[in-house]
Amino acid sequence: MARTAGSHSDITGPRIREAALRLFAQHGYAAVSMRQIAKEVGVQAGALYNYTPDKQSLLFDLLKGHMDDLLTARAALKKPDTPEDRLETFTRFHIGFHLDRPEAVFISYMELRNLTAENFKIIEDLRGAYESELEDILRDGREQGVFHVADTKITTLAIIAMLTGVNTWYRSGGRLSQEEVETIYWDMVRKAVT
Amino acid sequence: MARTAGSHSDITGPRIREAALRLFAQHGYAAVSMRQIAKEVGVQAGALYNYTPDKQSLLFDLLKGHMDDLLTARAALKKPDTPEDRLETFTRFHIGFHLDRPEAVFISYMELRNLTAENFKIIEDLRGAYESELEDILRDGREQGVFHVADTKITTLAIIAMLTGVNTWYRSGGRLSQEEVETIYWDMVRKAVT
Repeated sequence: MARTAGSHSDITGPRIREAALRLFAQHGYAAVSMRQIAKEVGVQAGALYNYTPDKQSLLFDLLKGHMDDLLTARAALKKPDTPEDRLETFTRFHIGFHLDRPEAVFISYMELRNLTAENFKIIEDLRGAYESELEDILRDGREQGVFHVADTKITTLAIIAMLTGVNTWYRSGGRLSQEEVETIYWDMVRKAVT
Repeated sequence: MARTAGSHSDITGPRIREAALRLFAQHGYAAVSMRQIAKEVGVQAGALYNYTPDKQSLLFDLLKGHMDDLLTARAALKKPDTPEDRLETFTRFHIGFHLDRPEAVFISYMELRNLTAENFKIIEDLRGAYESELEDILRDGREQGVFHVADTKITTLAIIAMLTGVNTWYRSGGRLSQEEVETIYWDMVRKAVT
């Protein structure tokens, strides 16, 4: 009996996504062909099309998968009571989640320009949902008088840019442990909003 | 009399750099050919090679030109006396300089991976020189007891990531003026280090 499309996809799908992620991160989406991705996986180019209709779908799956993972991991976290504790949890979570997936983070920033307008909108909405979680913490803290933030939206974007920036320089085994880095950033974030 | 190479370069050079910058920012370095750049400028592909030996040199010129401009503009600024005033000047300068050149900033982050090792080292050293200016301010402030910073190197990288992040969302004519944005960021930076 021939392999079914289902069982084929189950095995090949993750390998295709991994190969596409690696190649997009290394060379950029526009420079990578479906043929190169197939070669990296070790299948015929035609076999790729059993799994994904085109390169755009592959890019979108990677970026959407990254955002889905982020929101799922965030939803699974315990939520402390106070705005300050919630902000610390958010800060440490954001750094750890992003350090664990450097290539996905890299293409999520680099390749937004290569999404179709429709796909871009979906990713932007997911980002908005994530940013809202941080903005809610800042707003609650401001209402309770523990945070002093002129503009919760801009402070949200500033904190996220600062925390994601860790990915550009942190190497495990370097001068500081991840825990120490998280603590230094948490100290800056806490002071910036109080 | 035939045009000299000198006069030809004087006119065509800036147009080639502009076209390369625009195309690299839009499609990514790896996806853009010398032929496309020539077409965008409106010259034969061969004419490009009078100006630049190859695409790598063109990318390097753009990234190095951006860093040279940054360091020159920074050096031309008045230097206030106190660490706090110097930090405010740095903060406002960094935001303004980067908002003025979105494409150069974009490729300076995106295309580092496409530089040769030798070219990468030169750009990294220039970045290091710029980062040192901020770190010196933080160190002086700490020595004078006005800043409380656990790690001046990491705080430098955190502040630069936060400030450069403005480029990802700011649009002139939006809800806030550049001056208002600078003031909000300066407030966060000031609080984060004191």
